[in-house]
Amino acid sequence: MALQGKKLINNPDDVVTEFIEGLVETYQGLQYLDGFPEIKVVLRADAVGGAYDKVAVISGGGSGHEPAHAGFVGPGMLTAAVSGDVFASPPVDSILAAIRAVTGTMGCLLIIKNYTGDRLNFGLAAEQAKSEGYKIEMVIVGDDCALPPPRGIAGRRGLAGTILVHKVAGAAADAGLSLADVAAEAKHASEAVGTMGVALSVCTLPGQVTSDRLGPEQIELGLGIHGEPGAAVVELQTVDVVVEHVLKQILSQETQYLPITRGSNAVLLINGLGATPVMELMIAARKAVPELQLEYGIAVDRVYTGTFMTSLDMAGLSITIMRSDENILQRLDAPTKAPAWPVGSEGNRPPAKFPVPVPPSPSMKDDEILSERQELSKQGCMLEAAIEAAAKELIDLKDNLNDWDSKVGDGDCGTTMYRGATAILEDMKTRYHLNDAAGTVNEIGSTIRKVMGGTSGILG
Amino acid sequence: MALQGKKLINNPDDVVTEFIEGLVETYQGLQYLDGFPEIKVVLRADAVGGAYDKVAVISGGGSGHEPAHAGFVGPGMLTAAVSGDVFASPPVDSILAAIRAVTGTMGCLLIIKNYTGDRLNFGLAAEQAKSEGYKIEMVIVGDDCALPPPRGIAGRRGLAGTILVHKVAGAAADAGLSLADVAAEAKHASEAVGTMGVALSVCTLPGQVTSDRLGPEQIELGLGIHGEPGAAVVELQTVDVVVEHVLKQILSQETQYLPITRGSNAVLLINGLGATPVMELMIAARKAVPELQLEYGIAVDRVYTGTFMTSLDMAGLSITIMRSDENILQRLDAPTKAPAWPVGSEGNRPPAKFPVPVPPSPSMKDDEILSERQELSKQGCMLEAAIEAAAKELIDLKDNLNDWDSKVGDGDCGTTMYRGATAILEDMKTRYHLNDAAGTVNEIGSTIRKVMGGTSGILG
Repeated sequence: MALQGKKLINNPDDVVTEFIEGLVETYQGLQYLDGFPEIKVVLRADAVGGAYDKVAVISGGGSGHEPAHAGFVGPGMLTAAVSGDVFASPPVDSILAAIRAVTGTMGCLLIIKNYTGDRLNFGLAAEQAKSEGYKIEMVIVGDDCALPPPRGIAGRRGLAGTILVHKVAGAAADAGLSLADVAAEAKHASEAVGTMGVALSVCTLPGQVTSDRLGPEQIELGLGIHGEPGAAVVELQTVDVVVEHVLKQILSQETQYLPITRGSNAVLLINGLGATPVMELMIAARKAVPELQLEYGIAVDRVYTGTFMTSLDMAGLSITIMRSDENILQRLDAPTKAPAWPVGSEGNRPPAKFPVPVPPSPSMKDDEILSERQELSKQGCMLEAAIEAAAKELIDLKDNLNDWDSKVGDGDCGTTMYRGATAILEDMKTRYHLNDAAGTVNEIGSTIRKVMGGTSGILG
Repeated sequence: MALQGKKLINNPDDVVTEFIEGLVETYQGLQYLDGFPEIKVVLRADAVGGAYDKVAVISGGGSGHEPAHAGFVGPGMLTAAVSGDVFASPPVDSILAAIRAVTGTMGCLLIIKNYTGDRLNFGLAAEQAKSEGYKIEMVIVGDDCALPPPRGIAGRRGLAGTILVHKVAGAAADAGLSLADVAAEAKHASEAVGTMGVALSVCTLPGQVTSDRLGPEQIELGLGIHGEPGAAVVELQTVDVVVEHVLKQILSQETQYLPITRGSNAVLLINGLGATPVMELMIAARKAVPELQLEYGIAVDRVYTGTFMTSLDMAGLSITIMRSDENILQRLDAPTKAPAWPVGSEGNRPPAKFPVPVPPSPSMKDDEILSERQELSKQGCMLEAAIEAAAKELIDLKDNLNDWDSKVGDGDCGTTMYRGATAILEDMKTRYHLNDAAGTVNEIGSTIRKVMGGTSGILG
């Protein structure tokens, strides 16, 4: 029997409404419209009731992309978010309900990802709202860079770049701009942004079985955010190679998707697709920044690394690049209370490194290097051989030790021992007074404390 | 051949230093000490150089728990974080380097998770720092509630509750309190917090093979954050059942781990273990809040839902409860620039729901219910039978349609059709004028628009 994907959920039909209830329990500034299960709208608690005096910015679409879109509702970003069922566009009535709930005299901007269902439903809701007397503008985001043109009638898909458009529009609205000006800034931003993703696993819909489309050593390039198959399946690579490839696609001179050339400024967004650890996202950011700066001559003004626009429980990431200018940076840096927008990425960066402070006294022996190697005594030679044999044995045992340790602990004993043994072999060449056996034992202890960490290190 | 866990990394030995480089690229207020690979210390760029005029708060431990601990460095929280290798305590020298880098005349509080390696390494570093003239205090956090006492010589493990202790101590330090007072607040917080976790998958160490310890329909209760086996393995349950069980363990009257009784106030932290989608975390939060309030009589003051203290790529979550009082709430609500601390959970909650706005005119027919059913004509009966047959056919085809759709799209076509067909059968009983075939077709369209969403809905 094929197994359902393992998820911490209740009834698969209730995942979206239950998500919204939990979101609103967590964030005090959010409310939802009392229209479950059809109407699934999250809004700013301080912007309801028709008295909102700024341009309302509304986005949304199918669910399964959490924290998008509801996690980006807050002062300075979205005024409301409309959720459909998982991977299904929200119906017209719920979009209308959101518009009616938060739109005041300044009007409302709808930011829509470029999918047929979203364009139709949001478009019809906009027409209906206009007929009710609301001022409405729409901006469509299609930031996908995975497929070369022509891309069929549907055009480029809307991906994580949409989040940056939300931020620009939300900050512009918060600054008190008119609907036309907010829409113009959002459109400008949407034309300056490109995204491409890479997946390690296929997402599983709630209550459905997990696909075996992707082999255990394969990754998918240029995927959509609804589990659509990607543009290509390749063997798993190091993240550095993956990042290089994705940046090359986004910045391709052939497709010319992005108005970015050598000398441009840009911001970078590294987005986890749902099941990607923060560690891996940061490792990708670490590669992308110098790659953009050194290989493409692009100045990276800001880096946003985190989980923004997901595809349920998919492992993998997408990279988004947006050309930046003074005004866009000001909008991106503007404060917001939207819970899922990252804190601490704004402003300019000081140097990344700071020198290690020197100890107050030169008493520590760790860094001493023997200026000249003494002739080894016979005893010294034996000690050297013994240490070398023991260290090499530990190095050979690495995998076995890890294996045994994983039965009772965290499975890193072999790796830790390997690190210690390697450092001992290294330091022995330059730092150990091998003719003095007792001194050498102390020196080994110092090496171990320096590199091994964990409990073994300190007991050494 | 056993396969390595799929990860977006480069050399497994470099994951920690590369994570730190990416983190510092992302957050402008952070720096790291230039001592790679041995010294892995992230610090506030504005607190270095020995001139820091508040109590420095330092934490750390093995890596693999990202964003902890480095993601919690920032004004109002940690002053520096010391990282060891994956799941290995940092060596004494790197802890000492962190202390020397950020400690001024007010002194330094070390917050340590209760593991043997951390206690030894941080403890020795503290002694060494004191001998260099620094004022140092230590607080140990052991918030694990999974195992009943006695728990062996090592005692209760430090888990995600440590993050709340960081926040309390960081805010107290930021308020200008003395080292003794900051340490007292941290100790008070550490004694009021309890945590228990549940895992859907076992974590995989970088470069190692994935464990098959957990079957495809099993979950593990009461796990550690280093891949240690949990207290029990059980069949996968709904998240509501899992949350009930975990809360019962944490609040057990038998272990009396937490000083919380009926009538107490508390804060709740729902923590993803690395690969858990935001959707699932929020669904857990949705259950935990009313469960605490209604079943245990505990007032929930704040909810923090997100990814704070992980176990590499483990799927699952932990729940933390901390007894709250005026002072703790003030510390938790105090502003911080630490990137991984959640924004928007502070302050008191307004009502969660807001009524759906009524349309401006009563022209919409959606909500009309037939006051009295007309006798059906022969044609009306035939139409009713035809609609019923078609709808039931769609309902039966749900799984097949999902399956076919997953080959070309997002695999939800069957579910969407099922939802529409079910609503049609429902509305037909009360809303369709079946004697009027053309009218009925319009009414079906209205039903579909209301519930189906997606592209099918709007085309309907």
